Amino acid sequence: MKIAIMGYGTIGSGVKEVLDMNRAQIEKKGGEGIEIKYILARKEHIPGVEDALVTTDFSVIENDPEVELVVESIGGIHPAYEYIKSCLEKGKHVVSSNKAVVDACGSKLIRTAKEHNCNFYFEASVGGGIPVIRTLYHNYAGENVTEITGILNGTTNFILTKMREEGSSFEDTLKEAQRLGYAERDPSADIDGFDTSRKTAILLSMTSGNRCRHEDIYTEGIRNVSDIDMAYAKALGYSIKLLGSVQTVEDKYFAYVAPMMVEEQDPLYPVNGVYNGIRIVGNCLGTTMLYGMGAGKLPTASAVVSDIIAAVRHKNNFQGIGWSDKMIEIEPMGGNAFRYFLRIEGTEEGIEKELKSYFVENGKVKVHVLPGRKDEFAIISDILFEEDFLARLSAFEDETGRRVFHYLRVNSASEE
Amino acid sequence: MKIAIMGYGTIGSGVKEVLDMNRAQIEKKGGEGIEIKYILARKEHIPGVEDALVTTDFSVIENDPEVELVVESIGGIHPAYEYIKSCLEKGKHVVSSNKAVVDACGSKLIRTAKEHNCNFYFEASVGGGIPVIRTLYHNYAGENVTEITGILNGTTNFILTKMREEGSSFEDTLKEAQRLGYAERDPSADIDGFDTSRKTAILLSMTSGNRCRHEDIYTEGIRNVSDIDMAYAKALGYSIKLLGSVQTVEDKYFAYVAPMMVEEQDPLYPVNGVYNGIRIVGNCLGTTMLYGMGAGKLPTASAVVSDIIAAVRHKNNFQGIGWSDKMIEIEPMGGNAFRYFLRIEGTEEGIEKELKSYFVENGKVKVHVLPGRKDEFAIISDILFEEDFLARLSAFEDETGRRVFHYLRVNSASEE
Ligand SMILES: NC(=O)c1ccc[n+]([C@@H]2O[C@H](COP(=O)([O-])OP(=O)(O)OC[C@H]3O[C@@H](n4cnc5c(N)ncnc54)[C@H](OP(=O)(O)O)[C@@H]3O)[C@@H](O)[C@H]2O)c1
Ligand SMILES: NC(=O)c1ccc[n+]([C@@H]2O[C@H](COP(=O)([O-])OP(=O)(O)OC[C@H]3O[C@@H](n4cnc5c(N)ncnc54)[C@H](OP(=O)(O)O)[C@@H]3O)[C@@H](O)[C@H]2O)c1
Repeated sequence: MKIAIMGYGTIGSGVKEVLDMNRAQIEKKGGEGIEIKYILARKEHIPGVEDALVTTDFSVIENDPEVELVVESIGGIHPAYEYIKSCLEKGKHVVSSNKAVVDACGSKLIRTAKEHNCNFYFEASVGGGIPVIRTLYHNYAGENVTEITGILNGTTNFILTKMREEGSSFEDTLKEAQRLGYAERDPSADIDGFDTSRKTAILLSMTSGNRCRHEDIYTEGIRNVSDIDMAYAKALGYSIKLLGSVQTVEDKYFAYVAPMMVEEQDPLYPVNGVYNGIRIVGNCLGTTMLYGMGAGKLPTASAVVSDIIAAVRHKNNFQGIGWSDKMIEIEPMGGNAFRYFLRIEGTEEGIEKELKSYFVENGKVKVHVLPGRKDEFAIISDILFEEDFLARLSAFEDETGRRVFHYLRVNSASEE
Repeated sequence: MKIAIMGYGTIGSGVKEVLDMNRAQIEKKGGEGIEIKYILARKEHIPGVEDALVTTDFSVIENDPEVELVVESIGGIHPAYEYIKSCLEKGKHVVSSNKAVVDACGSKLIRTAKEHNCNFYFEASVGGGIPVIRTLYHNYAGENVTEITGILNGTTNFILTKMREEGSSFEDTLKEAQRLGYAERDPSADIDGFDTSRKTAILLSMTSGNRCRHEDIYTEGIRNVSDIDMAYAKALGYSIKLLGSVQTVEDKYFAYVAPMMVEEQDPLYPVNGVYNGIRIVGNCLGTTMLYGMGAGKLPTASAVVSDIIAAVRHKNNFQGIGWSDKMIEIEPMGGNAFRYFLRIEGTEEGIEKELKSYFVENGKVKVHVLPGRKDEFAIISDILFEEDFLARLSAFEDETGRRVFHYLRVNSASEE
């Protein structure tokens, strides 16, 4: 099969590298060889690539009937969307690693693919090398998926892991991650949770079968996670992870992105460094967890190549991985219920009654004090709806005159 | 699609339960409803099942052209093999959860399916509800898989986890597992490693694309793992797991089943209780780990149902999940290299030289003594080929007159 690669950066060049490196295997498994006919770039010369392959003119690719499949690894929404759409309209399969375009335009592109009896695949757009999209399509086809919760961003997981291991502050660790090339110079998309939010939206669409807007997903990044939070987490047997989570309860959909306390028994607890992990809960399968490289040149490119092979195997039929045009509503964040970890000013003396009535109505209040920090203490609350919790929090501050320095939600794999 | 279920025990009845419970979802995802037309049993009445569904006569199923798919959940090789073969010859898709028949007759059945343009699926035969077969087929299609190592048996993992948590002996823990229904009355298939060995053979066939014999896989069970081994493991930061492992090095295949010391950084380390975990290493994807329920009625039945939906989606074409008739050779166990954990009689005094020359030529010998056990100590060896190690072991015992009470191999996710 003759293909084109549009966008020859980290992933685009990685795809060429994987196709070259594993040529024999790919031909054997797919049933035919894959030949790169064009590489679309913005300049006419790419070091190490034959000039004959390179084009700066999309219409050459679009109009060449020999090209049966196009890889899109440009990133962003425009012109990626227009290019993908034109290719599908010409009956070419398209494989994309681009979560932005899949999130924003997925349902339209899936419909276009269907109308033209070709495939739009996007395994690499969530979880990089982790086989999550196909697992949801195939292995969870007969399941009612009640929850998907994942560590979906390697940069933030690297930072949080380092903070835990080294006791360092967020700012210092971010700088180190930037120096090591694990974080971008403008790190906002990662650390403010937007990357995770887009991937979470794609996971919600895959499981609900319908479209959603990542803008409707409550999204909180990791900027406010401090070394003090991390010290408490360690002392209490938690790790702090940036999680993207979707839940389905009857016909209601919940979704959020937030840094959370993760319990030691949770399969996501040991997922460290740049690794990602995705925990999926189904009504029959119970809990499954997929773990692997969520990004990086070769793992992501290998996921793209698995999509190319799928297209070879489904050359003449639309496979239907994806979701419909129908938009679903995501319930407001206030409707989610969590335990909360709270760091409260002072000591508990004099406010035992308020701690109980606002946060721990059931059982004894367990107070945690960090060695050397006499000016604050922490507690874990009962399970409360977020809306209710926020009201209690402000009433508690008013009544006691004490500040709550920070709170983090606790993700309970066991209780949900 | 009209289907039949052959063998109505744990899994067969589970399949009916999942089809009933998730009916709407299954119809939506598959594109059509699934109707059970027959249940094959050895008696005419099954409590809770309409008599009209039950038949004791296989030929009724085989000869009914309305039946497009048959689930085989009888277990064992005969008559499962003959039944599956006849159904495929009639062009019916077959879904099996039966590792014995897939291991022993897989390549023949895959060829028969191909010849009759229908599908033979067996997702549930390895890892129960863990999506490993399809992940290897789809997501690893373009990868050179260098290693698959898994905790593939829930019974033994339950026993080993309990032994670690409670410090109890193998015999007592086995009895408790039997009492709780986690181990069979005749537990040999699980604890002697044969179940893991069959699954390991299927994984090797999936990744090599060729047939192999589980009888050729070196197989050691967990009977000789003692509470003392476990106490050392805990003290040294390992957990002991029964692993099934396959490695590909150039065109050579290695495979074994053995209880091993697993390091804390290994994603298999925290896989506890009846959960299974499968670590897959590819040349581009790096390390991925799939975690979930490796057995049990509903998780396994859900995997069977995912196969049924796959068959609906590939009604008219052979999908080619499987391997060829070509038999591959598995290298002898002696050709594998490991670090070894050794428990040696006495104290190290007087045999420092021998310890170094036989087992730890590089660096310092680190001696571990368990509190309260003065009659033995443990060391971890250099990486040695098994053949060489065994020769050294017996020479060491001869020269020093000391017994080596027990040894266990160390599985090093990082070094391999
Ligand atoms: N990197 C990862 O680990 C990873 C993992 C999963 C998914 N992804 C996704 O994969 C996509 C690509 O990521 P990347 O890391 O490969 O980004 P990248 O290194 O920035 O590569 C993008 C390439 O596209 C080229 N490009 C931009 N606009 C173009 C246009 N109009 N026509 C032709 N080429 C154009 C850029 O060329 P210039 O050099 O001229 O700008 C650049 O070479 C993104 O959607 C990203 O989210 C990446
Ligand atoms: N249980 C699990 O968690 C699990 C997980 C993964 C895979 N599997 C595999 O799934 C298969 C079934 O396991 P299972 O646990 O369901 O076993 P099971 O509970 O023993 O069920 C087997 C059923 O097959 C029936 N049967 C035996 N021979 C038959 C024949 N000739 N015709 C019709 N029915 C016949 C048995 O009936 P009788 O009552 O008359 O003997 C029994 O009802 C096995 O291959 C097993 O390895 C099981």
